[in-house]
Amino acid sequence: MTYCVGVMLESGLIFASDSRTHAGIDNVASFTKLSLFEQADQRVIVLLSSGNLASTQAVISTLRQNEVRPDCPSLGNAESMFDAALLVSDAMRLVNQRDNLQTTTKAVDFNGSFILGGQIRGEPPRLFRIYSEGNFIEAGDQTPYFQIGETKYGKPIIDWAITRSSTLNDATKCILVSFDSTMRSNLSVGMPIDLICYQGDSLAVSMRRRFDPGDSYFSALSKEWNAGICEVLSELTDLEW
Amino acid sequence: MTYCVGVMLESGLIFASDSRTHAGIDNVASFTKLSLFEQADQRVIVLLSSGNLASTQAVISTLRQNEVRPDCPSLGNAESMFDAALLVSDAMRLVNQRDNLQTTTKAVDFNGSFILGGQIRGEPPRLFRIYSEGNFIEAGDQTPYFQIGETKYGKPIIDWAITRSSTLNDATKCILVSFDSTMRSNLSVGMPIDLICYQGDSLAVSMRRRFDPGDSYFSALSKEWNAGICEVLSELTDLEW
Repeated sequence: MTYCVGVMLESGLIFASDSRTHAGIDNVASFTKLSLFEQADQRVIVLLSSGNLASTQAVISTLRQNEVRPDCPSLGNAESMFDAALLVSDAMRLVNQRDNLQTTTKAVDFNGSFILGGQIRGEPPRLFRIYSEGNFIEAGDQTPYFQIGETKYGKPIIDWAITRSSTLNDATKCILVSFDSTMRSNLSVGMPIDLICYQGDSLAVSMRRRFDPGDSYFSALSKEWNAGICEVLSELTDLEW
Repeated sequence: MTYCVGVMLESGLIFASDSRTHAGIDNVASFTKLSLFEQADQRVIVLLSSGNLASTQAVISTLRQNEVRPDCPSLGNAESMFDAALLVSDAMRLVNQRDNLQTTTKAVDFNGSFILGGQIRGEPPRLFRIYSEGNFIEAGDQTPYFQIGETKYGKPIIDWAITRSSTLNDATKCILVSFDSTMRSNLSVGMPIDLICYQGDSLAVSMRRRFDPGDSYFSALSKEWNAGICEVLSELTDLEW
């Protein structure tokens, strides 16, 4: 399984992903699911991936390769984040086509999906969720975040605490709690957690962090949170029967 | 969908269920999923049900009917909660058999499942989760609660806040927050919420409550909770980059 979240706030964007991949519970590995495409002062683009690792890696490698090919449409020269989403979609369809072209081999079910977000100079920050079919939706005021993978355990805390006007600081802590909830409930979501906080209009990534297993900040946050909500619960008005 | 929870604390048991049933999103109705079998000073048995309403109602009607039949093994004369669980299991298999006996009709997939809990004089309170196959497990010290139906959204709050030594009071508020989270995320889980808190060894139900849509206590609890956790989040140690 996988858990990735992208959040679009008035003040910027947050991206977070777990790193566990598995083919059965006895075949577990770690691969990052966060890819950063950056041109200082020009563009910051982040791609979070979920699904079959062979599929998602092929898409990302295709995108990376196109970046260094002269005159090739790429995330490095896309004019808008909408165009960037189209490029990811094109790469997905290309990979899917190639894997299923030779009908003599066993068909590969392309099931990768992505969260794409970032900012290209001249545009505000934008956030997209790209389905495995290659079509996509864009975040708006009413729905300022997208999740992919194991989305349920970590959703209530985001719904309770994050709005478009949340600070990057508070929303980041909320997203980490969301990951803590998810990892506690689903063993196939696991550390390291990759995190990028993007301050809107900065056109550079200055806040990036990886949380490895046993990370002291993450462990402390988890304990503080647990103690905090137990206190909130006990202070809620008691039910009268 | 459905959401039901049974919790076994040192001090007693908590049972809660939503009431929404649906066959497609345009065919929605309300049916209670909580059944109480009580003999004052002798036994308190609660059954929470999830799955196909025709299946679960048939099981409950069978159990109710057996209670008034002379010399019939029933929840009213079972010697232990284990025997009570076996009776529920027998009723499930009977319903399943009857629905699939006539091979000329379309087979009915029995998919009801139950949480059964309570206390019979002479035993401590006990809690079971009965699968659709009719076999079952019993709650223990390490796992003091069971959920059925839409279990994911409301699970983290229970894991954070409930232990065997929680008070009935605090655990009840936690379960209501768990329902609030679930209803907010899944439209097919809905009010009224039926709630029973059973004080261990009381052999009587003195705390029972139904929360209808717009219930003022439930609405206030939801708001207090939301404000409380936003405060906890903002007071958590900030991440240093």
